[in-house]
Amino acid sequence: MAASFLMRKSSAVRFRNLFNRSIAVLPNQHQIHHHPIPPPSSSSLSRFFSSSSPSMASSDSPFPVTVHNINPKVVKCEYAVRGEIVTLAQQLQEDLKAKPGTHPFDEIIYCNIGNPQSLGQLPITFFREVLALCDIPSVLEKPETPALFSSDAIERAWSIIDTIPGQATGAYSHSQGIKGLRDTIAKGIEERDDFPANPNDIFLTDGASPAVHMMMQLLLRSEKDGILCPIPQYPLYSASIALHGGSLVPYYLNEATGWGLEIKELKKQLDAAKKDGISVRALVVINPGNPTGQVLSEENQRDIVKFCKTEGLVLLADEVYQENVYVPEKKFHSFKKVARSLGFGDKDITLASFQSVSKGYYGECGKRGGYMEITGFSPEVREQIYKMASVNLCSNISGQILASLVMSPPKVGDESYELYRAERDGILSSLARRAKTLEEAFNKLEGVTCNKAEGAMYLFPQIKLPQKAIDAAKAAKTAPDNFYCRNLLHATGVVVVPGSGFGQVPGTWHFRCTILPQEDKIPAIVNRITEFHKKFMDQYRK
Amino acid sequence: MAASFLMRKSSAVRFRNLFNRSIAVLPNQHQIHHHPIPPPSSSSLSRFFSSSSPSMASSDSPFPVTVHNINPKVVKCEYAVRGEIVTLAQQLQEDLKAKPGTHPFDEIIYCNIGNPQSLGQLPITFFREVLALCDIPSVLEKPETPALFSSDAIERAWSIIDTIPGQATGAYSHSQGIKGLRDTIAKGIEERDDFPANPNDIFLTDGASPAVHMMMQLLLRSEKDGILCPIPQYPLYSASIALHGGSLVPYYLNEATGWGLEIKELKKQLDAAKKDGISVRALVVINPGNPTGQVLSEENQRDIVKFCKTEGLVLLADEVYQENVYVPEKKFHSFKKVARSLGFGDKDITLASFQSVSKGYYGECGKRGGYMEITGFSPEVREQIYKMASVNLCSNISGQILASLVMSPPKVGDESYELYRAERDGILSSLARRAKTLEEAFNKLEGVTCNKAEGAMYLFPQIKLPQKAIDAAKAAKTAPDNFYCRNLLHATGVVVVPGSGFGQVPGTWHFRCTILPQEDKIPAIVNRITEFHKKFMDQYRK
Repeated sequence: MAASFLMRKSSAVRFRNLFNRSIAVLPNQHQIHHHPIPPPSSSSLSRFFSSSSPSMASSDSPFPVTVHNINPKVVKCEYAVRGEIVTLAQQLQEDLKAKPGTHPFDEIIYCNIGNPQSLGQLPITFFREVLALCDIPSVLEKPETPALFSSDAIERAWSIIDTIPGQATGAYSHSQGIKGLRDTIAKGIEERDDFPANPNDIFLTDGASPAVHMMMQLLLRSEKDGILCPIPQYPLYSASIALHGGSLVPYYLNEATGWGLEIKELKKQLDAAKKDGISVRALVVINPGNPTGQVLSEENQRDIVKFCKTEGLVLLADEVYQENVYVPEKKFHSFKKVARSLGFGDKDITLASFQSVSKGYYGECGKRGGYMEITGFSPEVREQIYKMASVNLCSNISGQILASLVMSPPKVGDESYELYRAERDGILSSLARRAKTLEEAFNKLEGVTCNKAEGAMYLFPQIKLPQKAIDAAKAAKTAPDNFYCRNLLHATGVVVVPGSGFGQVPGTWHFRCTILPQEDKIPAIVNRITEFHKKFMDQYRK
Repeated sequence: MAASFLMRKSSAVRFRNLFNRSIAVLPNQHQIHHHPIPPPSSSSLSRFFSSSSPSMASSDSPFPVTVHNINPKVVKCEYAVRGEIVTLAQQLQEDLKAKPGTHPFDEIIYCNIGNPQSLGQLPITFFREVLALCDIPSVLEKPETPALFSSDAIERAWSIIDTIPGQATGAYSHSQGIKGLRDTIAKGIEERDDFPANPNDIFLTDGASPAVHMMMQLLLRSEKDGILCPIPQYPLYSASIALHGGSLVPYYLNEATGWGLEIKELKKQLDAAKKDGISVRALVVINPGNPTGQVLSEENQRDIVKFCKTEGLVLLADEVYQENVYVPEKKFHSFKKVARSLGFGDKDITLASFQSVSKGYYGECGKRGGYMEITGFSPEVREQIYKMASVNLCSNISGQILASLVMSPPKVGDESYELYRAERDGILSSLARRAKTLEEAFNKLEGVTCNKAEGAMYLFPQIKLPQKAIDAAKAAKTAPDNFYCRNLLHATGVVVVPGSGFGQVPGTWHFRCTILPQEDKIPAIVNRITEFHKKFMDQYRK
């Protein structure tokens, strides 16, 4: 660490930029991205994409559109979860297919992204039955149907179809989503929180990402507007802030206290940003954490809510992992519930909570369903949000239906309940075991420390890299964590994402690894990673 | 017309703004929106939303977020298709439900939006069978299934599931969409055009709207970047340009020649924009036209392609109505086919073509499926587009599947073919009859002229309003066409969109009306509109 710290201090700006990638922040001083953005060099592009073609001068190009004359915010935006390492993995996969046996592994294991079904997780039967029946209502009345579908799925499909105006399952819906489905979701939120929820506060969206973009687009006027984001963070936030031309104001999660979120750190970064002339509009909190896996305590959440109230910040609560909590001592509490239990109403705190069908035990990423619940916005601003939703007409109806289903799954006594419960509990308890196994394995590796995944779908181990590895990365013109991940991929076929894609304290190196490979594959993965790591450390040891 | 022209000339700026709404353009001089945008007045907000609450001063507000401190681009953006008239209609619908008999109609007929299934159009059986089966693959092997689903739907579902890596129908796909589905779409394009199509040029999207936003986000750096858009236009374009901070450079379609698109008008507006320091990046062409319904001749398209090549403009081809052509003398030709048949390759013309599952004979708006085919972009820029797609992970898989189905429907000999053909031809021939009936009805109204709908789903009649109606609109602080549409709604329950939402030559007034109500309802709609129009004209006649 001391060595890498010296390294950083003495290195040229360009090299440091390569190190610190998308979130170029210093530990005690945030760096605001409001300098004019220079055209990207080909090496900066190649950090995320595999293309090795040189940067093209506008004048030589036969194309009217070049990287030099497109929106620089697009060029600036980075998204490591599908970045360079993944592109490399896709190439290796093609290789394996074309020439089996040419690599020391026979499959690519995608641990870069929270995409459970891509790694073999099966969908929840009840949810899929209802979706299929809503797609083909004519089947609902056929005599053969009860042999193929459960009775409560048939009943639920009817009740959903009846809630759609004109039973038109193929029509654009209300811009916020079908009212009857929002009613169901509001009821689900009420059951979860024990506080009222209003269906008119809910906007159904194609997954959580478009909802986050909508909030960023609403709040960010220029680079003088900032959003407080955790470091490390899920790169959707940095990407969205970059695309919408605002400034990311980082606050560091404390790795030493299990990725603790400390109010004094929030306050320090807020004040520093203000001093720089940044108007901080909102605070992003990801709970359970991504990539960090921590689950906030209710007391901590109360302090966060009070902080937002005092400072006049919108609280953007990423709660997409609300069903993914693996430790008995922690429980998920929604920020809205915490705010309401403090007695804070609409006029005290402005809050957007994001939920998705892609996570939880369902993991229906491909359905692109989700919602945001917005409270504490003035009627005039809500009209503006409604208008933004209207420009895209509506989110997809299957995703809308699924969002209502995850908030109102089968209940005791329903025909599907036992199967549903078995599927849900099977997935969640297996995820808990996988998290533990992987965490323990990482902690056994030389120079690696890994906090527990209390929730979500990831581990974010820190690796203390030998100086020779850092030098080798420098020679390869890449960041040390990227260098490690690339080597890991080449040796094992396991795809993980370098910590620099999420942000990390400079001079520290991490990677994010999902806990999603099927359980029977975990031992082999652990072996492969362990074996690779040993060789890597041996190779670069002084 | 002379009277209204004088009106406009003598009216105050504020009033003129109300007149000219989202596309504030003058006939011979385009107005670029690069002035600092003032906070919206409550009357400007109420143009789109029903709220009558006064504009709130920041200092009095308990909310940290107000219309005065959000992104002014959001405030500026307007989208009439779901604007004030629709909000009013929704209120009337609630009214009707709560107190039946209180209005002179017993249902609201939504002719404001191209949403066929909301007005009773049924989905194509084969498409829905395949979608349902892909949602619940376990059903595919059950003995009861062939009684419920056609054999080719079962076969197609298998082949789609097999094309998805790991058969994971619930996983995020490749950022551009599932490769196998892109292969199918590329093949469909080749069959349509008789020119090669590359699956790697295809980006599957949640409908056409996100694809348009992506292109605007890519191309627009500031208000000094402009996009040539037809006037009248589909307001997605003006909304997206406003949201992304560019300038709309209008070109007028010639109503007198059936909404003709004239190259000399393009050239004139391009030159005028350049003189104003605007760098024009792209030309939007909607073919078949929305809201105008014209179908371009191949010769006209060739000139447009040559114009884009000469001027270095990206051609943004909105081709979502490619299946909706109703007159035997016209045929849809894709711009890519036209470009290729001129011998223009990737290095000659940069082209994005948008397609959607929401239109055509399928009208599956709620599925939010679509794609863009991009050609003639440099590898570096394609990487940037890929990155933008990656930030949102992928479009919804059901929409992706449906996009592949509409580009490869059942073929002669398939079990579903006869039913599919009957459904498709039934819908298309009925749409053609409805277009004709409504057009003839509009042309019979006093002071109304209406071009033929050669394609798409709309008529865009012009109404010459009496001066007294214009004065009454002024007194009611609204635009005359809005005033007419509002009165039409109150009298008949028919929802149409004022021409000012699409842009029109100042001093002329139009509305857009879809041709989508079911055929058996058309006579009653015609009667109601005719009766209303007579009364309206009588009331405001000098």
